[in-house]
Amino acid sequence: MEEQVELVGRAFVNHYYQLFDTNRFSLSSLYQATSLLTFEGQKIHGADDIALKINQLPFDNCMHFITTIDCQPSSLTGGILVFVSGNLQLAGEEHQLKFSQMFHLIPTVEGSLFVQNDIFRLNYG
Amino acid sequence: MEEQVELVGRAFVNHYYQLFDTNRFSLSSLYQATSLLTFEGQKIHGADDIALKINQLPFDNCMHFITTIDCQPSSLTGGILVFVSGNLQLAGEEHQLKFSQMFHLIPTVEGSLFVQNDIFRLNYG
Repeated sequence: MEEQVELVGRAFVNHYYQLFDTNRFSLSSLYQATSLLTFEGQKIHGADDIALKINQLPFDNCMHFITTIDCQPSSLTGGILVFVSGNLQLAGEEHQLKFSQMFHLIPTVEGSLFVQNDIFRLNYG
Repeated sequence: MEEQVELVGRAFVNHYYQLFDTNRFSLSSLYQATSLLTFEGQKIHGADDIALKINQLPFDNCMHFITTIDCQPSSLTGGILVFVSGNLQLAGEEHQLKFSQMFHLIPTVEGSLFVQNDIFRLNYG
């Protein structure tokens, strides 16, 4: 069970940032109408507005480099909590930005997972 | 509702780090037998072992300085997700350490909240 959580959580993280870095528009499929994103303190509700926010971020190309992934079962929901830290390289920028992000993944009726909660912060230092 | 989540989440964070910095032994009351802590990648289950881990950390005095607190409702559980970033000053150390931590707070039958999920990471830079 615990290994399963770890495997699924890590697979999600790799999938998420691969989509983010190669086809950001397709990320909306990972969210639903109930989803919540807090991006650098700004609260956004629902897959449509979340997709809009992600697609309007003021850079074209980026690459996420993951440093750590921690996963835990979210017992009451049958879901998974994922905590990520890493570096973000924006096109044309010399220095990478450090970030932390957490996801609360919840099972869909079809048996896959969607992002119910997403909190993103740059770690200024 | 959203303001309530924000208020309760922030009050929890202030309470948690105040206890941590002044009376670390009393933190065990915030966890239950089902609680999970992942501390720098190490997984610990249950209030007793979590209290042991926190009390055996290799420093006596510390102070947490909070930089950001983000809160979201955890819809299926009636709980709250809290994401914290900040700096940690250890006694006798010149430089502060940057950290990120997330909590999943779940209502108890008595109507208060306990920490079901806790993930802590230092942000090396």
